[in-house]
Amino acid sequence: MGRMLLQQAANYPIETFVLENDTQAPAAHLCHHFQLGSITDFDTVLQFGRKVDVLTIEIENVSVEALFQLEKEGVKVIPRPEVLQTIKDKGLQKQFYETHQIPSPEFVLLGSAKDLQQKLDFLPAAQKMRTGGYDGKGVQLLWNEGDMVKAFSEPSLLEKMVDIEKEIAVIVACNESGETAVFPPTEMVFDPQLNLVDYLIAPANLSEAQIAKAEELALQVCSAFASPGIFAVEMFLNKDAELLVNETAPRVHNSGHQSIEGNYVSQFDMLLRVLQNLPLGSTKTIKPALMLNVLGEDGFSGNAQYEGLPAVLQLEGVSVHLYGKKQTKPGRKMGHVTIIADNRRELLSKAAIVKNTLKVKS
Amino acid sequence: MGRMLLQQAANYPIETFVLENDTQAPAAHLCHHFQLGSITDFDTVLQFGRKVDVLTIEIENVSVEALFQLEKEGVKVIPRPEVLQTIKDKGLQKQFYETHQIPSPEFVLLGSAKDLQQKLDFLPAAQKMRTGGYDGKGVQLLWNEGDMVKAFSEPSLLEKMVDIEKEIAVIVACNESGETAVFPPTEMVFDPQLNLVDYLIAPANLSEAQIAKAEELALQVCSAFASPGIFAVEMFLNKDAELLVNETAPRVHNSGHQSIEGNYVSQFDMLLRVLQNLPLGSTKTIKPALMLNVLGEDGFSGNAQYEGLPAVLQLEGVSVHLYGKKQTKPGRKMGHVTIIADNRRELLSKAAIVKNTLKVKS
Repeated sequence: MGRMLLQQAANYPIETFVLENDTQAPAAHLCHHFQLGSITDFDTVLQFGRKVDVLTIEIENVSVEALFQLEKEGVKVIPRPEVLQTIKDKGLQKQFYETHQIPSPEFVLLGSAKDLQQKLDFLPAAQKMRTGGYDGKGVQLLWNEGDMVKAFSEPSLLEKMVDIEKEIAVIVACNESGETAVFPPTEMVFDPQLNLVDYLIAPANLSEAQIAKAEELALQVCSAFASPGIFAVEMFLNKDAELLVNETAPRVHNSGHQSIEGNYVSQFDMLLRVLQNLPLGSTKTIKPALMLNVLGEDGFSGNAQYEGLPAVLQLEGVSVHLYGKKQTKPGRKMGHVTIIADNRRELLSKAAIVKNTLKVKS
Repeated sequence: MGRMLLQQAANYPIETFVLENDTQAPAAHLCHHFQLGSITDFDTVLQFGRKVDVLTIEIENVSVEALFQLEKEGVKVIPRPEVLQTIKDKGLQKQFYETHQIPSPEFVLLGSAKDLQQKLDFLPAAQKMRTGGYDGKGVQLLWNEGDMVKAFSEPSLLEKMVDIEKEIAVIVACNESGETAVFPPTEMVFDPQLNLVDYLIAPANLSEAQIAKAEELALQVCSAFASPGIFAVEMFLNKDAELLVNETAPRVHNSGHQSIEGNYVSQFDMLLRVLQNLPLGSTKTIKPALMLNVLGEDGFSGNAQYEGLPAVLQLEGVSVHLYGKKQTKPGRKMGHVTIIADNRRELLSKAAIVKNTLKVKS
């Protein structure tokens, strides 16, 4: 995320600072000032934040306490620390939707695996760890009592299984002047094994009315958070044609990567505009786009080697983004590929070629 | 140029090195390894080049002698040093076109201003310094004997004035495998005062036959140079409908900036593919594009301030690239703006707004 943000940041006359605990991080060499340190350490984040005018995050798992302190000291933090505090705890996030009457799947909180015993009538459900989950980790599906053995014992929540027709995400931006911009909904297709987005297509195949409803719901979420920022609002469209908010990420998001090629303003440019309180511009689609994650191939760990890259680079409308991570392991996100084309059929046929061609091995 | 190349380089798993004589250079913070030093100094370039597998340039004015030595030592230099040696001396470049039967305006070489006296019958002509000219510097128009007072005394050439219908540029790429790719011609409109491109439009407004001829000529130039690289071939279309090669730049070029938004593969991505000997991909146009240089406003020198940026960012299809140069001065290239739209009329009307709105002052 940081890498792509910095690629776009080089179009503005701004000075950039990055804090990361790895000098080989994908974003480390693309900023003016790199600082080695832990984003979860209060003092480190505090000292780092005092050097900048405006601060943002690429992951929720950061010292929110330090961000609160920085905000007190006059540093602009986007999104506001309250938002992060709510979102990084999936329990608080669910309660937030409840409080703000934002439709979301029914849920119960669990203190430990023991609590689950009392909630067997709530199954089938998704169990989600309240904190620390990321990229499909910390989420699992419990269909019946037999699945109890794999339940997390950490504080978690149970979310009633939704009869999903479609999963979509709507990215909304809001700047300090109160201007908002909504990207056309993207449609997600998940890899059932890794529970990671397999590919996504934007704009989603929805009716005009569904699009309007999804955009309205995303704006409602954004307005409830009452903070400048970029919000990726993931939603379920259930079999009853209802839209339910699954989760919100208060940052640039995997479901918006295709906007680099597919939209007039990308999600990364959008965040840079928000950070500078500049006008948000147009989110309109240039061409329909499909995005595939490039994941480390099963059975390979070690120095990353890219197989099939030449063949993929020959395809018209295919843009490859490799993140420069030196080490691969099974399922690790090593990059993404965006395809733009005039229609969905062409997108899907090229996606199949890319998926079968580009492999990360070691 | 280096800045935009590095923005795109972050999509590949490569390690980047930059040599520049200014730690504040626009590209300095976007590479893995920055080295402070002069690109015209033999030893500096030699030592720098020994650290890399493949080396390219963003400006012709570099120690070619060091590049020859590096090539001997097995470093891949793109374009080949011979090409640079020919191109950086406009006299040698003209002779090269002559030798290779590439149509180009008639010329004579001048050792000094005194030689000009014998060539008065050659006027009207453009006088060009053989070396050191850049961005409109080192070129002037001599219409008659009265203009003699402003003639350069450096070694130069006189080029017969062409009755210009249109100025175009065709960017060609060639990789080591011998694959070539040609971008659709771009049409240039110059600012008569600064002799700098004022704006350009791609694809150029030419007939099918003219496009075919222009692309063929560009490929002929590229083939004559017999080197991998990116070649921006600037041409005149004269009133007799002949195409004449004006100059070639063996690198990414101002006339290709619009390809970032306007084409499936940008000129920067294209150079990265050439450097890695990867397939060149598609140069097809996504949407017609117009590019304007953002120049330092007359009467302002000092710390750059951007006026009108918010208004410009509101326009759909307008992408702003500011190069992060701290100091502005009249006519200095501080960035560029690309506009994409469905038709030429919309491009031109938005360009007029941008031109009257975005100003670099101090």
